[in-house]
Amino acid sequence: MHVDELTTPALLVDLDRLDANIATMAARWPGDRLRPHVKAFKSTALARRLAEAGHRSFCCATVRETEGMAAAGLGQDLLLANEVLDARRLGVLVGQGARVTVAVDSLATIEAAAVGGVREVLIDVNVGLPRCGCAPDDAGRLADAARARGLAVRGVMGYEGHVVGVEDRAEREAGVAESMTLLTAAHEAVGGDVVSGGGTGTWDSNRWITELQAGSYLLMDTAYEKLDLPFQPALTLSGTVISVNESGGWAVADVGLKALGMDHGNPAVVDPPGPKVWFCSDEHLTFGAKGDSRVSVGDRVRVQPAHVDPTVAYHERLHVVRGDEVLDTWPVDLRGW
Amino acid sequence: MHVDELTTPALLVDLDRLDANIATMAARWPGDRLRPHVKAFKSTALARRLAEAGHRSFCCATVRETEGMAAAGLGQDLLLANEVLDARRLGVLVGQGARVTVAVDSLATIEAAAVGGVREVLIDVNVGLPRCGCAPDDAGRLADAARARGLAVRGVMGYEGHVVGVEDRAEREAGVAESMTLLTAAHEAVGGDVVSGGGTGTWDSNRWITELQAGSYLLMDTAYEKLDLPFQPALTLSGTVISVNESGGWAVADVGLKALGMDHGNPAVVDPPGPKVWFCSDEHLTFGAKGDSRVSVGDRVRVQPAHVDPTVAYHERLHVVRGDEVLDTWPVDLRGW
Repeated sequence: MHVDELTTPALLVDLDRLDANIATMAARWPGDRLRPHVKAFKSTALARRLAEAGHRSFCCATVRETEGMAAAGLGQDLLLANEVLDARRLGVLVGQGARVTVAVDSLATIEAAAVGGVREVLIDVNVGLPRCGCAPDDAGRLADAARARGLAVRGVMGYEGHVVGVEDRAEREAGVAESMTLLTAAHEAVGGDVVSGGGTGTWDSNRWITELQAGSYLLMDTAYEKLDLPFQPALTLSGTVISVNESGGWAVADVGLKALGMDHGNPAVVDPPGPKVWFCSDEHLTFGAKGDSRVSVGDRVRVQPAHVDPTVAYHERLHVVRGDEVLDTWPVDLRGW
Repeated sequence: MHVDELTTPALLVDLDRLDANIATMAARWPGDRLRPHVKAFKSTALARRLAEAGHRSFCCATVRETEGMAAAGLGQDLLLANEVLDARRLGVLVGQGARVTVAVDSLATIEAAAVGGVREVLIDVNVGLPRCGCAPDDAGRLADAARARGLAVRGVMGYEGHVVGVEDRAEREAGVAESMTLLTAAHEAVGGDVVSGGGTGTWDSNRWITELQAGSYLLMDTAYEKLDLPFQPALTLSGTVISVNESGGWAVADVGLKALGMDHGNPAVVDPPGPKVWFCSDEHLTFGAKGDSRVSVGDRVRVQPAHVDPTVAYHERLHVVRGDEVLDTWPVDLRGW
């Protein structure tokens, strides 16, 4: 099928770019040294492609993602890298033979894991981002408490999310070192084989971890493109120009707020190249359309989102394309909670 | 079921407040004088409640919404208040007995309507918002072209979206008057019975239209709450506190970017009252939690979104509550395109 036959807005994945991103990352973080983060793409079909590239351990952000990965036969080593207070659905997966590890950062989340039937945990350590994770000097106490509750403690995780997006490389690397010094100290107190952390932005600067949690590198977005990374943008939205205002110098495409994660700001129109985005409404993208950026009603345009994760989460499917040909359609089957 | 038994994040609709909003609006815009906009709630169950309150004509923003409304038996008078270049799925609905009217603002969209099998159109007139709509003085020519193509022209629509959110009432009213002067002139050139426009923000100041397109008034959000409107916030998200950082003075709930439309900015924590939201991540809301805002791991919190439409579009269901009791669960069955 030709890509212009798709109903718009349509989420497109450039297969060759995706594969190139997979290969670039796997060269540095092969096999189980990478724990791809499924929150960035929410598709078991894409996860299967990663498994074929040698990655068999995955990172999830929600119980639903964990369930979906296990149901797809990708439950060899699933880490729910997030705290949950109700782990019963995870316990069901363990009972069915999946390996599920959950992050804990408090006595309450340790208790929830144990009651829910999860058997393995990582101690989640706060390394600077104001979010989850215990204080580094409390990690050993929590590991002891988890073991006393009958849980196996596989190690630690700590996400340096406050530095992954820092554009200046030297500043980013200094931030990683500072964060990972905290995580390494916590790991000494906790024990276990696993030191899990990092992300797409610190893929080549985090040298302290045993496994990298990265997801955005696969599809990329305009925010990550600002960094000096070798990964190529592989995700666009195809939209249809539904209105042109010649005298005003703008056009409107049917790619709106409900097709785009907007927390990082407006998307970019990348094909035709050059138009400035004016604003988004629920179902509309208004952009400048003068001179070289002129378009006609009925034209297709390509739009690149500012933030990949919440963009994908709005869509039911990812269309896999090479050039103008649609090769396959992958369900975004890990949405919801 | 008690609301705290729901898996979080969970979208909650306060039924009494919803019904009060329906009643307040219906007193001013009864029956077919209101054309409720389903894009704001994407649920045929909620639309049915509006039908029970006397509103039988609805406004849609997507083909999918139009299809879903027709399939639910609510196809008495559906307006797709948006331009489409492929109207074939709408033509199928017409063939099945639904009444479907589509907005057109160009010869291309008129042709698409005719080819697709739609029989009735409104001429969409630009009244100031840089988005869709023809130039006001071009409306008559387009109406003639539509009639020449065999389409019935029911009238005009024009959305004063650039003024619906203006907080100063006098300024808002002046903007409405200016926009509606343009729409009224276009209507004289076009003919037909329908002058469709307006929104929640101009519900009591737009005196030029024959029918009001409003949707946000039903559930409201923090952006619309800034206006002097009598509608009550009826939508919240229930979240679970998954982590507390005592020394840092923050807590984390499981209500993140993928549960919230973020284009209008951060949501508000409304229960407990008072916490300042620091930031949102994909699956996390970090908020200040000191003094009166202290919470414990496992507590439930209520969060009000900044923009209702793209928030609802992330969710599979709306839980209908009265106090702490879950009375019903409505599928958000009009998502996608």
